[in-house]
Amino acid sequence: MKAFLLSLGLLMAAGTLAGQSRMRDYGIEYGIFRTGPLNAITDVKGVRVGHTTLIEGDSVRTGVTAVIPHPGNIFRHKLPAAVCIGNGYGKMAGYTQIRELGNIETPIVLTNTLGVAAGLDALIDYTLSNPENGDVKSVNGVVGETNDGTLNDIRGRHVTKEHVLAALRNAKEGPVAEGNVGAGTGTICFGFKGGIGTSSRVLPARYGGYTVGVLTQTNYGGVLEIAGIPVGRYLENYPYRDAVLQDTDGSCIIVIVTDAPLDARNLERLAKRGMMGLSRTGGIASNGSGDYVIAVSTASENLIDDRNAYYTPKLLHNEAVSPLFEAAIEATAEALWNSLFAAETMTGSGITVEALPVERILPLFNKKR
Amino acid sequence: MKAFLLSLGLLMAAGTLAGQSRMRDYGIEYGIFRTGPLNAITDVKGVRVGHTTLIEGDSVRTGVTAVIPHPGNIFRHKLPAAVCIGNGYGKMAGYTQIRELGNIETPIVLTNTLGVAAGLDALIDYTLSNPENGDVKSVNGVVGETNDGTLNDIRGRHVTKEHVLAALRNAKEGPVAEGNVGAGTGTICFGFKGGIGTSSRVLPARYGGYTVGVLTQTNYGGVLEIAGIPVGRYLENYPYRDAVLQDTDGSCIIVIVTDAPLDARNLERLAKRGMMGLSRTGGIASNGSGDYVIAVSTASENLIDDRNAYYTPKLLHNEAVSPLFEAAIEATAEALWNSLFAAETMTGSGITVEALPVERILPLFNKKR
Amino acid sequence: MKAFLLSLGLLMAAGTLAGQSRMRDYGIEYGIFRTGPLNAITDVKGVRVGHTTLIEGDSVRTGVTAVIPHPGNIFRHKLPAAVCIGNGYGKMAGYTQIRELGNIETPIVLTNTLGVAAGLDALIDYTLSNPENGDVKSVNGVVGETNDGTLNDIRGRHVTKEHVLAALRNAKEGPVAEGNVGAGTGTICFGFKGGIGTSSRVLPARYGGYTVGVLTQTNYGGVLEIAGIPVGRYLENYPYRDAVLQDTDGSCIIVIVTDAPLDARNLERLAKRGMMGLSRTGGIASNGSGDYVIAVSTASENLIDDRNAYYTPKLLHNEAVSPLFEAAIEATAEALWNSLFAAETMTGSGITVEALPVERILPLFNKKR
Amino acid sequence: MKAFLLSLGLLMAAGTLAGQSRMRDYGIEYGIFRTGPLNAITDVKGVRVGHTTLIEGDSVRTGVTAVIPHPGNIFRHKLPAAVCIGNGYGKMAGYTQIRELGNIETPIVLTNTLGVAAGLDALIDYTLSNPENGDVKSVNGVVGETNDGTLNDIRGRHVTKEHVLAALRNAKEGPVAEGNVGAGTGTICFGFKGGIGTSSRVLPARYGGYTVGVLTQTNYGGVLEIAGIPVGRYLENYPYRDAVLQDTDGSCIIVIVTDAPLDARNLERLAKRGMMGLSRTGGIASNGSGDYVIAVSTASENLIDDRNAYYTPKLLHNEAVSPLFEAAIEATAEALWNSLFAAETMTGSGITVEALPVERILPLFNKKR
Repeated sequence: MKAFLLSLGLLMAAGTLAGQSRMRDYGIEYGIFRTGPLNAITDVKGVRVGHTTLIEGDSVRTGVTAVIPHPGNIFRHKLPAAVCIGNGYGKMAGYTQIRELGNIETPIVLTNTLGVAAGLDALIDYTLSNPENGDVKSVNGVVGETNDGTLNDIRGRHVTKEHVLAALRNAKEGPVAEGNVGAGTGTICFGFKGGIGTSSRVLPARYGGYTVGVLTQTNYGGVLEIAGIPVGRYLENYPYRDAVLQDTDGSCIIVIVTDAPLDARNLERLAKRGMMGLSRTGGIASNGSGDYVIAVSTASENLIDDRNAYYTPKLLHNEAVSPLFEAAIEATAEALWNSLFAAETMTGSGITVEALPVERILPLFNKKR
Repeated sequence: MKAFLLSLGLLMAAGTLAGQSRMRDYGIEYGIFRTGPLNAITDVKGVRVGHTTLIEGDSVRTGVTAVIPHPGNIFRHKLPAAVCIGNGYGKMAGYTQIRELGNIETPIVLTNTLGVAAGLDALIDYTLSNPENGDVKSVNGVVGETNDGTLNDIRGRHVTKEHVLAALRNAKEGPVAEGNVGAGTGTICFGFKGGIGTSSRVLPARYGGYTVGVLTQTNYGGVLEIAGIPVGRYLENYPYRDAVLQDTDGSCIIVIVTDAPLDARNLERLAKRGMMGLSRTGGIASNGSGDYVIAVSTASENLIDDRNAYYTPKLLHNEAVSPLFEAAIEATAEALWNSLFAAETMTGSGITVEALPVERILPLFNKKR
Repeated sequence: MKAFLLSLGLLMAAGTLAGQSRMRDYGIEYGIFRTGPLNAITDVKGVRVGHTTLIEGDSVRTGVTAVIPHPGNIFRHKLPAAVCIGNGYGKMAGYTQIRELGNIETPIVLTNTLGVAAGLDALIDYTLSNPENGDVKSVNGVVGETNDGTLNDIRGRHVTKEHVLAALRNAKEGPVAEGNVGAGTGTICFGFKGGIGTSSRVLPARYGGYTVGVLTQTNYGGVLEIAGIPVGRYLENYPYRDAVLQDTDGSCIIVIVTDAPLDARNLERLAKRGMMGLSRTGGIASNGSGDYVIAVSTASENLIDDRNAYYTPKLLHNEAVSPLFEAAIEATAEALWNSLFAAETMTGSGITVEALPVERILPLFNKKR
Repeated sequence: MKAFLLSLGLLMAAGTLAGQSRMRDYGIEYGIFRTGPLNAITDVKGVRVGHTTLIEGDSVRTGVTAVIPHPGNIFRHKLPAAVCIGNGYGKMAGYTQIRELGNIETPIVLTNTLGVAAGLDALIDYTLSNPENGDVKSVNGVVGETNDGTLNDIRGRHVTKEHVLAALRNAKEGPVAEGNVGAGTGTICFGFKGGIGTSSRVLPARYGGYTVGVLTQTNYGGVLEIAGIPVGRYLENYPYRDAVLQDTDGSCIIVIVTDAPLDARNLERLAKRGMMGLSRTGGIASNGSGDYVIAVSTASENLIDDRNAYYTPKLLHNEAVSPLFEAAIEATAEALWNSLFAAETMTGSGITVEALPVERILPLFNKKR
């Protein structure tokens, strides 16, 4: 049915790539704020996304996704940033320095659990090779991961530094490929095929008109809800029944980028709302789930260049941040759902994981909510 | 309609007090686990709840709620405990020592924002006056609060030590009064009258058969969802529209008690799931919302008596805690909703806050979900 | 000997109050940076300190110390602030909101463990009674405490709201009384009489010329070192020997105020250096010690008024903060030592705690270090 | 003089390797507790240490140090563990999962800043290649680092996976090589040559008789003090003077291992005391210093095997941990000092960093302290 609807082109929302469906293509909406033009993280000006997708033979189903938050030399013009550890299982690299210094100095790389070293290696190459960084001897690479070891031969460690560099090189603005691409190639979410998803929200002008964009790598579990509909129970695919069908472990990485002028402290608060967005999908952040939210502000006037003694950022007050919280929750939830709508059935390592059966669940959404 | 249904007695579920309605009385259910017999925090053996409700004149609308987690001398037999700071606005007392030592040594008192000192004073009295505690010179009172200053003359500081002691004295097992009682007397939630709510979940025997009970004091905001239904949007009562009708600030205290044998580290993880439960209701943990979750284990074999050098707790492994996470999310969400179903329209300080219009929203729940 | 030297007036350094001795009065110096004119927290412009000292009958030996960080309405012009939980035993009030919002909105009150409620009550009074705060319904009072229950009848709870308000009222600039005053009246430190101590450091102009001022309430233990000299071992007064003479528990509150323009994140880092200062004195932050460091920036251009949407602070970069770390460590250590030099032998509740025997240890410092 | 004394063999304390000097060889002692037989981390039973030292050509001055805390399969028998982020600059891997799950599942690897990826890769190899771990798809490698980029061509990234595996392979019990070995090969500390250092303390029997062992990689700065003596000022080698001679940045990794039965929460507290030990040496945890303390308990009865639902550890109560705090502070400080006493002058990348001039400072320690 997805293919049918898409072939008609009737439901293709702005921002949809050919051949890929999104939640709103089916008339399912969520939240009180409008999306940006692309309904993608790239609605935040200057943000680029790149993927390397590795599908080889019977059992290589993995990849890399890179988010480059601004077009300049990030090492020299660091961005205020924070990370929320939703559930700290997992091997995310870069956390402690972000927490201490309040900024990121590399792009954000997502890949599989055993590929973090390759991601770090690549981000060091990426940074050292910039001629402006000829004296740099310390690089805090930011690498998130989820475990695609059911479909993918993860122990084979097929992601290399070159794959990561390729994702960084091909990063671009505009619509973002979702589903079985990049770091989402082999992921599983709520027992269905997961992947990469993205979404955005734009605040009303009276709240500053800021954009909040989200990109997610979904590989987690729980009792799936979509825009309030208990889809997991309807499909009888949820954990903790007699016959456990769904492993709730897995992990989820959520990248939130905004042009709102927030410092690291308020970005940490924004990041925490990413986990509230995950909860809206029925996620529970199970014991073995590495759930992390990285929040970054691209407000150009606040980029950090430590070579000056002072800086004079323009910052939103605490009292002004709540609409951004709502926007982050909505965009995160929709990005997570988009990953499910876009992902297609995949077979790897002898196992087939079905896509979300969109046709079966659409009748549940039979009236405007 | 609530009164009508209740007068018929047809919908009174186990655990319901006369004259008070609960979400399940209307056939609305949530989650995959069953509730305990009372669907209340008191389903955890030994837990008692007491209220002092202050409604006086035109503008006193406040009170105290006490949760006593076990019947013994809590100071001598401390309970493993943890607190999650969902959004750290607010004046909760006791956090840092719980974080450091991993336990609580007093009952938990909830009241209004400017009543925390009275709560502390009372818990010190409560502890020092126990003859077994004749040598005690240090008491870490646990007091949560939300701000009822719209309906209540909060600046008048009407809650006294005696009111708190009364709530402690009248604490009892069995069904728990909800809505406009105790610390929920004057609270507002999603623009409607909030209050006290409670719920519980029982794990299947193969996951240990543990009970997770929750009690909440609801005074927060967002875009209300009930069991997935976007009630706030339907009722056109949500924030960030042209005419802001709802203040999202306010606060929410969530108390989670379980008989599962968890240490403080895993209780901290359980507490974090309380915020995921709050998210399920449409809460956003706005800037000015003091959202805290206190999680306590009553497993009797793990009570802490520091007068011995060693202790040998029986503890659940990390790998076994995920079902408890699901249970905590479900019970928290339902406790929050129960507070709305139970609370009745209240006028105070010249302002009337309407109860959730249950009759209007029931048609939204017209089929089994 | 202290009295003798002081009567000669020969050794009275700037900032010394009549009748009170300080470490530098004996030629003992520490660190690489110079002190401010008063070698006190009041070297930071606008900072005031007030004490209420309660010495009554045989067993009341307690009090209150208040630090008011700027002369305006602190509630309306909040100060960037952070707290380091060195060892989170203890009942400090205000932590979570400072952590979340990055500021303080009341003066800082120090008192005894069971007096925190009185402190909170007083800070609410103090804030609500300001005519500019007529609409205020929420106050995050900051109250630190240590346990003076050996010399003081702490269970009698002799500190009242009025005592706290008196300390706030009599706060003043200029030299700060140390030793057995205010919140230090009944405290014990390294087995000797502790109390209030203060010190300051001024950065060289090329590092900004900022002042870091510290005030401490000392009631903790360990193996005393003074400016590197192992005084505790020399005096054979240290814990963990056959006959345990010294209780290492007790607590220490450290207040750091600076005019350096730091945001809450860098103030949190500064606060952590307070614990490094405590370590320099031989402190170990024992299990039962409530060791907290509160760091506040008074940089006038950065005071926070949330009634505007934006603010544009002038902030020091991360790269510029290290000299402030050194200054905070030095000033903290010296403030802690000053409390010991100033405190005099006290008897209370039938127990006598000796002052640091300065005459006996001076020979250990017989050459310039 | 070092060579002279050592050639006499008169001062070689137990645990000293041929040709290497330690602080106690010069009669300088610190603290109130006695050391273990080796005065090394290997005094904790079962702990092994291995080094790979890379000194090649003019500019390769780096290496790897591995600490293997017990002889079994660590992945299957995880150890309770915690990390203190003293100053979170730096790229330490493994933090978030340790924080969440309270354990480590690999050995601890130390290397240089740009070698973390090699360390991770090696720990994954190490774990996956164990036949017992044939189904393992997720490995939380623990890798600490400091930046040796002054003496070492760090941008050349000379540390490879093979170097790390070699350090793991050659790990052994017994005396530990200190100074310019392994991860300490190219490090600088207080402006002098730093390196690897180790020390231990044993509690009196009445406190349990536990051993606390520490190993450090020293590359940090401040105003050097040795056992209370202000050596940095005496040698006029300290920062923040007109001519800045010493860069305080750099980093320090501290590994604390104990056989005391502590859970992750109390190990986190123990880890914090590592930073207090660093402070005793004059360290300030400057802005650019990545200062981390990893604390691990080897108590065999508490090793964690998540394949059982329950575990019943034997744990020390909070009230019993303070002597361990004192021991951790002492052993950390002495390990840091030992790194300076053992390290010898080194030239690399055209720069010569002098060893601590032991002969010059010995007269400062001319009487028993």
